[in-house]
Amino acid sequence: MNWRARLLALDGLMPGMDESGALAWTTLADAPEGCDLVFLGLDEGKACFAAVPEAGDIAPRLANPALWQAMASLRPDDLAIYGGARSLVDWHARHRFCAQCGGPTTLAKGGWQRDCGNCGAQHFPRTDPVTIMLVEHNDRLLLGRGKGWPEGRFSALAGFVEPGESLEEAVAREVLEESGVVVGEVRYIASQPWPFPSQLMIGCHATATSDAITMDETELAEIGWFSRSEVAAALVGEGPFTAPPAQAIAHHLLTWWIEK
Amino acid sequence: MNWRARLLALDGLMPGMDESGALAWTTLADAPEGCDLVFLGLDEGKACFAAVPEAGDIAPRLANPALWQAMASLRPDDLAIYGGARSLVDWHARHRFCAQCGGPTTLAKGGWQRDCGNCGAQHFPRTDPVTIMLVEHNDRLLLGRGKGWPEGRFSALAGFVEPGESLEEAVAREVLEESGVVVGEVRYIASQPWPFPSQLMIGCHATATSDAITMDETELAEIGWFSRSEVAAALVGEGPFTAPPAQAIAHHLLTWWIEK
Repeated sequence: MNWRARLLALDGLMPGMDESGALAWTTLADAPEGCDLVFLGLDEGKACFAAVPEAGDIAPRLANPALWQAMASLRPDDLAIYGGARSLVDWHARHRFCAQCGGPTTLAKGGWQRDCGNCGAQHFPRTDPVTIMLVEHNDRLLLGRGKGWPEGRFSALAGFVEPGESLEEAVAREVLEESGVVVGEVRYIASQPWPFPSQLMIGCHATATSDAITMDETELAEIGWFSRSEVAAALVGEGPFTAPPAQAIAHHLLTWWIEK
Repeated sequence: MNWRARLLALDGLMPGMDESGALAWTTLADAPEGCDLVFLGLDEGKACFAAVPEAGDIAPRLANPALWQAMASLRPDDLAIYGGARSLVDWHARHRFCAQCGGPTTLAKGGWQRDCGNCGAQHFPRTDPVTIMLVEHNDRLLLGRGKGWPEGRFSALAGFVEPGESLEEAVAREVLEESGVVVGEVRYIASQPWPFPSQLMIGCHATATSDAITMDETELAEIGWFSRSEVAAALVGEGPFTAPPAQAIAHHLLTWWIEK
Protein backbone atom coordinates (compact mmCIF):
# COMPACT_ATOMS: atom_id res chain seq x y z
CA MET A 1 0.00 0.00 0.00
CA ASN A 2 1.26 3.48 -0.75
CA TRP A 3 -0.29 6.80 0.06
CA ARG A 4 1.08 8.89 -2.72
CA ALA A 5 -1.61 11.44 -3.46
CA ARG A 6 -1.98 15.03 -4.52
CA LEU A 7 -4.65 17.70 -4.29
CA LEU A 8 -5.58 20.08 -7.10
CA ALA A 9 -4.97 23.67 -5.98
CA LEU A 10 -8.25 25.56 -6.32
CA ASP A 11 -9.28 28.98 -5.02
CA GLY A 12 -13.04 28.45 -4.94
CA LEU A 13 -13.45 27.21 -8.48
CA MET A 14 -10.46 29.11 -9.92
CA PRO A 15 -7.41 27.05 -10.89
CA GLY A 16 -4.16 27.57 -9.01
CA MET A 17 -1.12 27.84 -11.29
CA ASP A 18 2.63 27.42 -10.69
CA GLU A 19 5.42 29.69 -12.03
CA SER A 20 5.55 27.74 -15.32
CA GLY A 21 1.83 28.32 -15.94
CA ALA A 22 0.91 24.68 -15.26
CA LEU A 23 -1.90 23.60 -12.90
CA ALA A 24 -0.64 23.70 -9.31
CA TRP A 25 -0.94 20.64 -7.04
CA THR A 26 -0.55 20.43 -3.30
CA THR A 27 -0.97 17.66 -0.70
CA LEU A 28 -4.02 16.22 1.03
CA ALA A 29 -2.84 17.93 4.22
CA ASP A 30 -3.90 21.21 2.61
CA ALA A 31 -7.55 20.14 2.24
CA PRO A 32 -9.86 22.17 4.52
CA GLU A 33 -10.99 20.34 7.69
CA GLY A 34 -14.04 18.16 7.02
CA CYS A 35 -14.37 18.98 3.33
CA ASP A 36 -15.40 16.38 0.76
CA LEU A 37 -12.75 15.06 -1.62
CA VAL A 38 -13.45 13.93 -5.19
CA PHE A 39 -11.16 11.30 -6.70
CA LEU A 40 -10.05 12.51 -10.15
CA GLY A 41 -7.95 9.47 -11.14
CA LEU A 42 -4.33 8.33 -11.11
CA ASP A 43 -1.52 10.34 -12.67
CA GLU A 44 2.16 9.37 -12.61
CA GLY A 45 1.40 6.80 -9.91
CA LYS A 46 -0.31 9.28 -7.62
CA ALA A 47 -4.00 9.44 -6.68
CA CYS A 48 -5.32 12.87 -7.64
CA PHE A 49 -8.08 14.59 -5.68
CA ALA A 50 -9.98 17.88 -5.68
CA ALA A 51 -11.76 19.38 -2.65
CA VAL A 52 -15.41 20.42 -2.90
CA PRO A 53 -15.58 24.20 -2.24
CA GLU A 54 -18.12 25.75 0.14
CA ALA A 55 -20.13 27.26 -2.71
CA GLY A 56 -20.63 26.36 -6.35
CA ASP A 57 -20.59 28.73 -9.29
CA ILE A 58 -23.02 31.59 -8.73
CA ALA A 59 -23.42 32.13 -12.49
CA PRO A 60 -22.81 28.59 -13.67
CA ARG A 61 -23.55 29.19 -17.34
CA LEU A 62 -20.95 31.93 -17.77
CA ALA A 63 -17.20 31.96 -17.56
CA ASN A 64 -15.61 34.99 -15.94
CA PRO A 65 -12.85 37.03 -17.64
CA ALA A 66 -10.07 36.06 -15.18
CA LEU A 67 -10.94 32.38 -15.63
CA TRP A 68 -11.08 32.79 -19.40
CA GLN A 69 -7.54 34.19 -19.32
CA ALA A 70 -6.32 31.36 -17.10
CA MET A 71 -7.87 28.81 -19.44
CA ALA A 72 -6.25 30.38 -22.49
CA SER A 73 -2.81 29.85 -20.92
CA LEU A 74 -3.23 26.25 -19.69
CA ARG A 75 -1.80 23.35 -21.72
CA PRO A 76 -4.51 21.11 -23.30
CA ASP A 77 -3.93 18.21 -20.87
CA ASP A 78 -4.09 20.56 -17.84
CA LEU A 79 -7.20 22.18 -19.29
CA ALA A 80 -8.89 18.76 -19.56
CA ILE A 81 -8.02 17.90 -15.94
CA TYR A 82 -9.19 21.29 -14.67
CA GLY A 83 -12.42 21.15 -16.71
CA GLY A 84 -13.41 17.70 -15.45
CA ALA A 85 -12.50 18.57 -11.84
CA ARG A 86 -14.34 21.88 -11.97
CA SER A 87 -17.56 20.26 -13.28
CA LEU A 88 -17.44 17.63 -10.54
CA VAL A 89 -16.69 19.79 -7.50
CA ASP A 90 -19.13 22.48 -8.64
CA TRP A 91 -21.86 19.81 -9.01
CA HIS A 92 -21.15 18.53 -5.48
CA ALA A 93 -21.22 22.05 -4.04
CA ARG A 94 -24.62 22.70 -5.63
CA HIS A 95 -26.15 19.26 -4.89
CA ARG A 96 -25.82 18.73 -1.14
CA PHE A 97 -29.52 17.84 -0.85
CA CYS A 98 -31.74 15.15 -2.36
CA ALA A 99 -33.94 16.38 -5.23
CA GLN A 100 -36.39 13.56 -4.50
CA CYS A 101 -37.02 14.13 -0.75
CA GLY A 102 -35.06 17.23 0.32
CA GLY A 103 -32.88 15.31 2.78
CA PRO A 104 -29.10 15.75 3.04
CA THR A 105 -26.95 13.70 0.67
CA THR A 106 -23.40 12.43 1.12
CA LEU A 107 -20.60 11.97 -1.35
CA ALA A 108 -20.17 8.34 -2.50
CA LYS A 109 -17.98 6.28 -4.85
CA GLY A 110 -15.06 8.68 -4.60
CA GLY A 111 -17.18 11.61 -5.73
CA TRP A 112 -18.89 10.11 -8.79
CA GLN A 113 -22.19 9.78 -6.92
CA ARG A 114 -24.19 11.28 -4.01
CA ASP A 115 -26.48 9.12 -1.87
CA CYS A 116 -29.52 10.17 0.17
CA GLY A 117 -29.55 8.67 3.65
CA ASN A 118 -33.25 9.47 4.00
CA CYS A 119 -34.98 8.03 0.89
CA GLY A 120 -32.09 6.05 -0.60
CA ALA A 121 -32.01 7.90 -3.94
CA GLN A 122 -28.70 7.96 -5.80
CA HIS A 123 -27.68 11.07 -7.72
CA PHE A 124 -25.06 11.35 -10.46
CA PRO A 125 -23.06 14.29 -11.85
CA ARG A 126 -24.63 15.89 -14.89
CA THR A 127 -23.24 16.17 -18.39
CA ASP A 128 -25.50 18.35 -20.53
CA PRO A 129 -25.32 17.79 -24.29
CA VAL A 130 -25.39 21.01 -26.33
CA THR A 131 -25.48 21.12 -30.13
CA ILE A 132 -23.45 23.86 -31.82
CA MET A 133 -23.80 24.07 -35.55
CA LEU A 134 -22.39 25.59 -38.69
CA VAL A 135 -25.43 26.24 -40.87
CA GLU A 136 -24.38 26.54 -44.52
CA HIS A 137 -26.23 27.91 -47.56
CA ASN A 138 -24.58 28.69 -50.92
CA ASP A 139 -21.09 28.70 -49.40
CA ARG A 140 -22.08 31.13 -46.63
CA LEU A 141 -22.40 30.44 -42.87
CA LEU A 142 -25.17 31.57 -40.52
CA LEU A 143 -23.61 33.19 -37.42
CA GLY A 144 -25.23 35.06 -34.57
CA ARG A 145 -24.41 37.50 -31.79
CA GLY A 146 -26.02 36.57 -28.47
CA LYS A 147 -27.73 39.16 -26.30
CA GLY A 148 -25.15 40.71 -24.00
CA TRP A 149 -22.17 39.67 -26.13
CA PRO A 150 -19.57 42.32 -27.04
CA GLU A 151 -20.23 44.35 -30.18
CA GLY A 152 -18.92 42.53 -33.27
CA ARG A 153 -18.53 39.07 -31.67
CA PHE A 154 -20.31 36.38 -33.73
CA SER A 155 -20.37 32.62 -33.34
CA ALA A 156 -22.22 29.47 -34.38
CA LEU A 157 -25.79 28.97 -33.09
CA ALA A 158 -26.04 26.55 -30.17
CA GLY A 159 -28.57 25.10 -27.74
CA PHE A 160 -29.23 22.32 -25.25
CA VAL A 161 -30.53 18.97 -26.49
CA GLU A 162 -34.04 18.56 -25.02
CA PRO A 163 -35.59 15.35 -23.65
CA GLY A 164 -36.88 13.11 -26.43
CA GLU A 165 -34.68 14.52 -29.22
CA SER A 166 -31.93 12.99 -31.34
CA LEU A 167 -28.88 15.19 -32.03
CA GLU A 168 -30.10 15.80 -35.57
CA GLU A 169 -33.57 16.83 -34.34
CA ALA A 170 -32.03 19.15 -31.75
CA VAL A 171 -29.94 20.90 -34.43
CA ALA A 172 -32.95 21.40 -36.71
CA ARG A 173 -35.22 22.68 -33.90
CA GLU A 174 -32.62 25.06 -32.47
CA VAL A 175 -31.77 26.59 -35.86
CA LEU A 176 -35.49 27.00 -36.68
CA GLU A 177 -36.21 28.61 -33.28
CA GLU A 178 -33.28 31.04 -33.34
CA SER A 179 -33.26 31.99 -37.02
CA GLY A 180 -36.34 30.67 -38.82
CA VAL A 181 -33.99 28.81 -41.19
CA VAL A 182 -34.90 25.22 -42.17
CA VAL A 183 -32.04 22.71 -42.37
CA GLY A 184 -31.80 19.41 -44.22
CA GLU A 185 -28.82 17.10 -43.78
CA VAL A 186 -27.00 17.30 -40.43
CA ARG A 187 -23.47 15.92 -40.01
CA TYR A 188 -21.39 15.42 -36.84
CA ILE A 189 -17.97 17.12 -36.84
CA ALA A 190 -16.36 17.09 -33.37
CA SER A 191 -17.12 17.34 -29.65
CA GLN A 192 -15.57 19.10 -26.65
CA PRO A 193 -16.40 19.25 -22.93
CA TRP A 194 -17.10 22.76 -21.65
CA PRO A 195 -17.20 22.98 -17.86
CA PHE A 196 -19.57 25.98 -17.32
CA PRO A 197 -21.03 24.11 -15.56
CA SER A 198 -20.97 20.75 -17.36
CA GLN A 199 -21.70 20.95 -21.06
CA LEU A 200 -20.69 18.48 -23.73
CA MET A 201 -20.49 20.63 -26.86
CA ILE A 202 -21.40 18.58 -29.95
CA GLY A 203 -20.30 20.34 -33.12
CA CYS A 204 -22.28 19.71 -36.31
CA HIS A 205 -22.62 20.96 -39.86
CA ALA A 206 -26.12 21.50 -41.23
CA THR A 207 -27.16 22.31 -44.79
CA ALA A 208 -29.90 24.98 -44.96
CA THR A 209 -32.69 24.62 -47.49
CA SER A 210 -33.53 28.35 -47.37
CA ASP A 211 -31.78 31.56 -46.30
CA ALA A 212 -34.63 33.86 -45.14
CA ILE A 213 -34.01 34.82 -41.50
CA THR A 214 -36.50 35.48 -38.69
CA MET A 215 -34.31 36.25 -35.67
CA ASP A 216 -35.33 35.12 -32.17
CA GLU A 217 -35.06 38.45 -30.35
CA THR A 218 -35.14 36.87 -26.89
CA GLU A 219 -31.83 35.05 -27.54
CA LEU A 220 -29.97 37.01 -30.21
CA ALA A 221 -28.91 40.62 -30.81
CA GLU A 222 -27.81 40.10 -34.45
CA ILE A 223 -27.65 37.33 -37.01
CA GLY A 224 -26.44 37.07 -40.60
CA TRP A 225 -24.84 35.07 -43.38
CA PHE A 226 -21.05 35.35 -43.79
CA SER A 227 -19.00 34.39 -46.84
CA ARG A 228 -15.97 32.11 -46.85
CA SER A 229 -13.61 35.09 -47.26
CA GLU A 230 -15.27 36.96 -44.37
CA VAL A 231 -14.96 33.93 -42.05
CA ALA A 232 -11.34 33.30 -43.12
CA ALA A 233 -10.48 36.95 -42.41
CA ALA A 234 -12.21 36.87 -39.00
CA LEU A 235 -10.15 33.81 -37.99
CA VAL A 236 -6.95 35.83 -38.43
CA GLY A 237 -8.41 38.88 -36.66
CA GLU A 238 -9.12 40.91 -39.81
CA GLY A 239 -12.74 40.12 -40.58
CA PRO A 240 -16.02 42.03 -40.41
CA PHE A 241 -16.68 40.29 -37.06
CA THR A 242 -14.73 39.01 -34.05
CA ALA A 243 -14.35 35.20 -34.18
CA PRO A 244 -14.76 33.02 -31.07
CA PRO A 245 -11.52 32.45 -29.09
CA ALA A 246 -9.22 29.51 -29.84
CA GLN A 247 -10.35 27.44 -26.79
CA ALA A 248 -13.97 27.36 -27.97
CA ILE A 249 -15.17 24.54 -30.23
CA ALA A 250 -16.80 27.20 -32.45
CA HIS A 251 -13.30 28.40 -33.43
CA HIS A 252 -12.33 24.82 -34.31
CA LEU A 253 -15.52 24.37 -36.37
CA LEU A 254 -14.95 27.59 -38.33
CA THR A 255 -11.35 26.51 -39.04
CA TRP A 256 -12.61 23.09 -40.19
CA TRP A 257 -15.04 24.79 -42.58
CA ILE A 258 -12.38 27.05 -44.09
CA GLU A 259 -9.97 24.13 -44.56
CA LYS A 260 -12.43 21.57 -45.89
CA MET B 1 -57.87 32.98 -27.70
CA ASN B 2 -58.78 29.34 -27.91
CA TRP B 3 -58.53 26.70 -25.26
CA ARG B 4 -58.08 23.64 -27.38
CA ALA B 5 -55.86 21.34 -25.39
CA ARG B 6 -55.35 17.66 -24.73
CA LEU B 7 -53.77 15.55 -22.01
CA LEU B 8 -51.56 12.52 -22.64
CA ALA B 9 -53.16 9.45 -21.05
CA LEU B 10 -50.65 7.94 -18.61
CA ASP B 11 -51.10 5.27 -15.94
CA GLY B 12 -48.21 6.24 -13.67
CA LEU B 13 -45.50 6.31 -16.32
CA MET B 14 -47.13 3.69 -18.61
CA PRO B 15 -48.62 4.96 -21.89
CA GLY B 16 -52.36 4.69 -22.44
CA MET B 17 -53.29 3.32 -25.87
CA ASP B 18 -56.49 3.44 -27.94
CA GLU B 19 -58.02 0.52 -29.89
CA SER B 20 -55.83 1.29 -32.93
CA GLY B 21 -52.65 0.99 -30.84
CA ALA B 22 -51.93 4.75 -30.96
CA LEU B 23 -51.15 6.89 -27.90
CA ALA B 24 -54.41 7.80 -26.13
CA TRP B 25 -55.24 11.46 -25.32
CA THR B 26 -57.88 12.83 -22.99
CA THR B 27 -58.85 16.31 -21.80
CA LEU B 28 -57.41 18.60 -19.12
CA ALA B 29 -60.56 17.90 -17.06
CA ASP B 30 -59.12 14.41 -16.47
CA ALA B 31 -55.96 15.74 -14.79
CA PRO B 32 -55.87 14.84 -11.06
CA GLU B 33 -56.77 17.71 -8.71
CA GLY B 34 -53.75 19.92 -7.97
CA CYS B 35 -51.27 17.97 -10.10
CA ASP B 36 -48.55 19.71 -12.11
CA LEU B 37 -48.90 19.86 -15.89
CA VAL B 38 -46.01 19.84 -18.34
CA PHE B 39 -46.50 21.55 -21.71
CA LEU B 40 -45.30 19.16 -24.44
CA GLY B 41 -45.95 21.42 -27.45
CA LEU B 42 -48.59 22.06 -30.10
CA ASP B 43 -50.01 19.31 -32.29
CA GLU B 44 -52.75 19.80 -34.90
CA GLY B 45 -53.58 23.19 -33.35
CA LYS B 46 -53.99 21.83 -29.83
CA ALA B 47 -51.77 22.44 -26.81
CA CYS B 48 -50.55 19.05 -25.53
CA PHE B 49 -49.88 18.43 -21.85
CA ALA B 50 -48.83 15.57 -19.58
CA ALA B 51 -49.55 15.35 -15.83
CA VAL B 52 -46.71 14.74 -13.37
CA PRO B 53 -47.44 11.43 -11.57
CA GLU B 54 -47.19 11.05 -7.80
CA ALA B 55 -44.04 8.95 -8.04
CA GLY B 56 -41.23 8.65 -10.58
CA ASP B 57 -39.73 5.47 -11.91
CA ILE B 58 -38.58 3.26 -9.04
CA ALA B 59 -35.93 1.58 -11.23
CA PRO B 60 -35.23 4.43 -13.64
CA ARG B 61 -32.39 2.77 -15.52
CA LEU B 62 -34.45 -0.26 -16.59
CA ALA B 63 -37.47 -0.65 -18.84
CA ASN B 64 -40.09 -3.16 -17.68
CA PRO B 65 -41.39 -5.96 -19.95
CA ALA B 66 -44.96 -4.57 -20.29
CA LEU B 67 -43.56 -1.18 -21.25
CA TRP B 68 -41.12 -2.77 -23.69
CA GLN B 69 -44.06 -4.48 -25.42
CA ALA B 70 -46.06 -1.23 -25.55
CA MET B 71 -43.08 0.59 -27.03
CA ALA B 72 -42.60 -2.08 -29.70
CA SER B 73 -46.16 -1.48 -30.93
CA LEU B 74 -46.17 2.35 -30.99
CA ARG B 75 -45.63 4.21 -34.27
CA PRO B 76 -42.29 6.14 -34.42
CA ASP B 77 -43.94 9.58 -34.02
CA ASP B 78 -45.99 8.39 -31.01
CA LEU B 79 -42.89 6.76 -29.54
CA ALA B 80 -41.02 10.09 -29.78
CA ILE B 81 -43.87 11.97 -28.05
CA TYR B 82 -44.17 9.34 -25.31
CA GLY B 83 -40.39 9.20 -24.77
CA GLY B 84 -40.02 12.95 -24.38
CA ALA B 85 -43.09 13.21 -22.13
CA ARG B 86 -42.00 10.28 -19.97
CA SER B 87 -38.50 11.76 -19.40
CA LEU B 88 -40.00 15.11 -18.40
CA VAL B 89 -42.75 13.98 -16.02
CA ASP B 90 -40.47 11.38 -14.41
CA TRP B 91 -37.85 14.07 -13.84
CA HIS B 92 -40.46 16.37 -12.20
CA ALA B 93 -41.73 13.52 -9.99
CA ARG B 94 -38.20 12.82 -8.76
CA HIS B 95 -37.06 16.46 -8.41
CA ARG B 96 -39.62 18.11 -6.13
CA PHE B 97 -36.87 19.51 -3.89
CA CYS B 98 -33.90 21.81 -4.43
CA ALA B 99 -30.56 19.98 -4.67
CA GLN B 100 -28.81 23.16 -3.52
CA CYS B 101 -30.73 23.92 -0.31
CA GLY B 102 -33.27 21.12 0.25
CA GLY B 103 -36.28 23.46 -0.03
CA PRO B 104 -39.39 22.68 -2.08
CA THR B 105 -39.31 23.59 -5.76
CA THR B 106 -42.16 24.50 -8.10
CA LEU B 107 -42.68 23.79 -11.77
CA ALA B 108 -41.88 26.77 -14.03
CA LYS B 109 -41.83 27.67 -17.74
CA GLY B 110 -44.50 25.14 -18.63
CA GLY B 111 -42.51 22.29 -17.13
CA TRP B 112 -39.11 22.91 -18.70
CA GLN B 113 -37.69 24.22 -15.40
CA ARG B 114 -38.18 24.00 -11.61
CA ASP B 115 -37.51 26.98 -9.34
CA CYS B 116 -36.58 27.03 -5.66
CA GLY B 117 -38.58 29.58 -3.66
CA ASN B 118 -36.05 29.38 -0.83
CA CYS B 119 -32.59 29.93 -2.41
CA GLY B 120 -33.66 30.95 -5.92
CA ALA B 121 -31.82 28.14 -7.73
CA GLN B 122 -33.18 27.07 -11.11
CA HIS B 123 -33.14 23.40 -12.09
CA PHE B 124 -33.45 21.95 -15.58
CA PRO B 125 -34.47 18.50 -16.86
CA ARG B 126 -31.53 16.20 -17.50
CA THR B 127 -30.44 14.64 -20.76
CA ASP B 128 -27.61 12.17 -20.12
CA PRO B 129 -25.31 11.45 -23.07
CA VAL B 130 -24.35 7.78 -23.41
CA THR B 131 -21.90 6.45 -25.99
CA ILE B 132 -22.74 3.08 -27.56
CA MET B 133 -20.12 1.69 -29.90
CA LEU B 134 -19.43 -0.93 -32.51
CA VAL B 135 -15.79 -1.87 -31.91
CA GLU B 136 -14.32 -3.47 -35.05
CA HIS B 137 -11.15 -5.51 -35.56
CA ASN B 138 -10.39 -7.53 -38.72
CA ASP B 139 -14.02 -7.49 -39.84
CA ARG B 140 -15.32 -8.73 -36.47
CA LEU B 141 -17.36 -6.83 -33.85
CA LEU B 142 -16.86 -6.78 -30.09
CA LEU B 143 -20.20 -7.47 -28.36
CA GLY B 144 -20.98 -8.13 -24.72
CA ARG B 145 -23.67 -9.59 -22.49
CA GLY B 146 -24.42 -7.46 -19.43
CA LYS B 147 -24.78 -8.94 -15.98
CA GLY B 148 -28.41 -9.95 -15.47
CA TRP B 149 -29.22 -10.02 -19.21
CA PRO B 150 -30.97 -13.14 -20.62
CA GLU B 151 -28.72 -16.00 -21.74
CA GLY B 152 -27.57 -15.47 -25.35
CA ARG B 153 -28.44 -11.73 -25.59
CA PHE B 154 -25.46 -9.68 -26.79
CA SER B 155 -25.20 -6.01 -27.72
CA ALA B 156 -22.76 -3.17 -28.30
CA LEU B 157 -20.75 -1.86 -25.32
CA ALA B 158 -22.11 1.40 -23.89
CA GLY B 159 -21.52 3.86 -21.06
CA PHE B 160 -22.26 7.37 -19.80
CA VAL B 161 -20.07 10.25 -20.94
CA GLU B 162 -18.27 11.53 -17.84
CA PRO B 163 -17.55 15.17 -16.93
CA GLY B 164 -14.55 16.53 -18.82
CA GLU B 165 -14.62 14.02 -21.70
CA SER B 166 -15.22 14.44 -25.43
CA LEU B 167 -17.39 11.80 -27.13
CA GLU B 168 -14.29 10.20 -28.65
CA GLU B 169 -12.53 10.07 -25.26
CA ALA B 170 -15.64 8.55 -23.65
CA VAL B 171 -15.75 5.78 -26.29
CA ALA B 172 -12.06 4.93 -25.82
CA ARG B 173 -12.26 4.92 -22.00
CA GLU B 174 -15.43 2.86 -21.85
CA VAL B 175 -14.13 0.20 -24.28
CA LEU B 176 -10.83 0.00 -22.38
CA GLU B 177 -12.60 -0.31 -19.00
CA GLU B 178 -15.10 -2.96 -20.10
CA SER B 179 -12.92 -5.05 -22.41
CA GLY B 180 -9.25 -4.06 -22.15
CA VAL B 181 -9.33 -3.36 -25.90
CA VAL B 182 -7.58 -0.21 -27.20
CA VAL B 183 -9.33 1.74 -29.94
CA GLY B 184 -7.94 4.19 -32.51
CA GLU B 185 -10.24 6.14 -34.82
CA VAL B 186 -13.78 6.84 -33.54
CA ARG B 187 -16.59 7.84 -35.92
CA TYR B 188 -20.12 9.10 -35.15
CA ILE B 189 -22.96 7.09 -36.76
CA ALA B 190 -26.37 8.06 -35.33
CA SER B 191 -28.18 9.12 -32.16
CA GLN B 192 -31.47 8.27 -30.45
CA PRO B 193 -33.20 9.44 -27.25
CA TRP B 194 -33.87 6.63 -24.75
CA PRO B 195 -36.22 7.68 -21.96
CA PHE B 196 -35.08 5.35 -19.11
CA PRO B 197 -34.87 7.83 -17.58
CA SER B 198 -33.38 10.41 -19.97
CA GLN B 199 -30.50 9.09 -22.04
CA LEU B 200 -29.29 10.43 -25.37
CA MET B 201 -27.73 7.37 -27.00
CA ILE B 202 -24.84 8.39 -29.27
CA GLY B 203 -23.90 5.57 -31.61
CA CYS B 204 -20.29 5.36 -32.82
CA HIS B 205 -17.94 3.06 -34.70
CA ALA B 206 -14.45 2.51 -33.28
CA THR B 207 -11.50 0.74 -34.86
CA ALA B 208 -9.63 -1.48 -32.38
CA THR B 209 -5.85 -1.64 -32.52
CA SER B 210 -5.72 -5.00 -30.68
CA ASP B 211 -8.12 -7.87 -29.99
CA ALA B 212 -6.97 -9.31 -26.64
CA ILE B 213 -9.85 -9.08 -24.16
CA THR B 214 -9.79 -8.48 -20.39
CA MET B 215 -13.47 -8.49 -19.40
CA ASP B 216 -14.76 -6.16 -16.67
CA GLU B 217 -16.52 -8.74 -14.47
CA THR B 218 -18.43 -6.11 -12.48
CA GLU B 219 -20.35 -5.02 -15.62
CA LEU B 220 -20.33 -7.94 -18.03
CA ALA B 221 -21.21 -11.65 -17.95
CA GLU B 222 -19.70 -12.50 -21.37
CA ILE B 223 -17.87 -10.73 -24.18
CA GLY B 224 -16.48 -11.82 -27.53
CA TRP B 225 -15.71 -11.05 -31.18
CA PHE B 226 -18.40 -11.90 -33.76
CA SER B 227 -17.92 -12.24 -37.52
CA ARG B 228 -19.97 -10.49 -40.16
CA SER B 229 -21.88 -13.68 -40.97
CA GLU B 230 -22.66 -14.29 -37.28
CA VAL B 231 -23.99 -10.73 -36.83
CA ALA B 232 -26.02 -10.94 -40.05
CA ALA B 233 -27.57 -14.24 -38.91
CA ALA B 234 -28.38 -12.83 -35.46
CA LEU B 235 -30.23 -9.87 -37.03
CA VAL B 236 -32.67 -12.32 -38.69
CA GLY B 237 -33.03 -14.42 -35.54
CA GLU B 238 -30.73 -17.26 -36.63
CA GLY B 239 -27.37 -16.33 -35.17
CA PRO B 240 -25.19 -17.66 -32.37
CA PHE B 241 -26.60 -14.86 -30.16
CA THR B 242 -29.83 -12.90 -29.69
CA ALA B 243 -29.58 -9.44 -31.25
CA PRO B 244 -30.97 -6.32 -29.52
CA PRO B 245 -34.63 -5.52 -30.35
CA ALA B 246 -35.57 -3.30 -33.29
CA GLN B 247 -36.40 -0.22 -31.13
CA ALA B 248 -32.86 -0.11 -29.70
CA ILE B 249 -30.17 1.95 -31.43
CA ALA B 250 -27.84 -1.07 -31.12
CA HIS B 251 -30.05 -2.92 -33.62
CA HIS B 252 -29.81 0.02 -36.02
CA LEU B 253 -26.01 0.14 -35.60
CA LEU B 254 -25.60 -3.59 -36.30
CA THR B 255 -27.78 -3.24 -39.42
CA TRP B 256 -25.68 -0.25 -40.55
CA TRP B 257 -22.50 -2.33 -40.14
CA ILE B 258 -23.86 -5.27 -42.15
CA GLU B 259 -25.07 -2.98 -44.93
CA LYS B 260 -22.04 -0.70 -45.18
